[in-house]
Amino acid sequence: MKKKLSLVTIVTEGILKEQFSELLQENGASGFTITRAEGQGSRGLRARDWEGPNLRFEAIVSSAAADQILAAVEKKYFESYSVIAWVSKVEVVRGEKFVGEENV
Amino acid sequence: MKKKLSLVTIVTEGILKEQFSELLQENGASGFTITRAEGQGSRGLRARDWEGPNLRFEAIVSSAAADQILAAVEKKYFESYSVIAWVSKVEVVRGEKFVGEENV
Amino acid sequence: MKKKLSLVTIVTEGILKEQFSELLQENGASGFTITRAEGQGSRGLRARDWEGPNLRFEAIVSSAAADQILAAVEKKYFESYSVIAWVSKVEVVRGEKFVGEENV
Repeated sequence: MKKKLSLVTIVTEGILKEQFSELLQENGASGFTITRAEGQGSRGLRARDWEGPNLRFEAIVSSAAADQILAAVEKKYFESYSVIAWVSKVEVVRGEKFVGEENV
Repeated sequence: MKKKLSLVTIVTEGILKEQFSELLQENGASGFTITRAEGQGSRGLRARDWEGPNLRFEAIVSSAAADQILAAVEKKYFESYSVIAWVSKVEVVRGEKFVGEENV
Repeated sequence: MKKKLSLVTIVTEGILKEQFSELLQENGASGFTITRAEGQGSRGLRARDWEGPNLRFEAIVSSAAADQILAAVEKKYFESYSVIAWVSKVEVVRGEKFVGEENV
């Protein structure tokens, strides 16, 4: 009944909403949740990093899809945008609906 | 000082706020946190699933209460409502206040 | 590429925004994310605990910094304020930027 999956969380700039929605879906997330967030960084973050609203994306995916999402985020956004991304292990009820065929 | 407990996260439709608040409390959560969320699903979710605001509930509970909460969510809401529920292991400061007598 | 770190989550009263921002930075968090939250407690929480908006802080830090943050929260706020704090293990892309020199 419960399935072990990966929870990917990404906090990024609000203007990237469409791009990250597409990135998640293209890399194996069948759905995701967005909450509005505010961020603050003091060290090693650019001044503009945390101005304006941020968005916090969450997606439950297979371990393979989590790796794929993180690689895509790193490749496309880390150079030029403010992005934080992390993965944690979770147990999900009806987990099978979060794992697309390409990620089983 | 730190106690290992379960963090239950549930994302569901805003209209179910009262029902899920009751469900959590009836199944061993002494308190919970709610944030407003927006969801999007592309595969296997009904069209209406993610219209309007969603709510993201979080509750710190015992492992037994987590199982009980997930079972109740599955039994009562999965057929007819849009619900995602997952559990992760966390370490909590003053964890004892999150564990009701029935769940020790 | 991925680094194992600690995700510290703190839910507290909105009026403590500045204090907790400072507490996090003073104890090793190079940045953090804040989301608005609403809380509800039924057992063992004071009546005023969950009135008005709450804030949910998240910070990715070293394991040592996580312990330091939790100890500071416990020492300064648990007596007189409504605070919940927990830690979970996460894997972070470009984790090195979340670990200050004092916490390596």
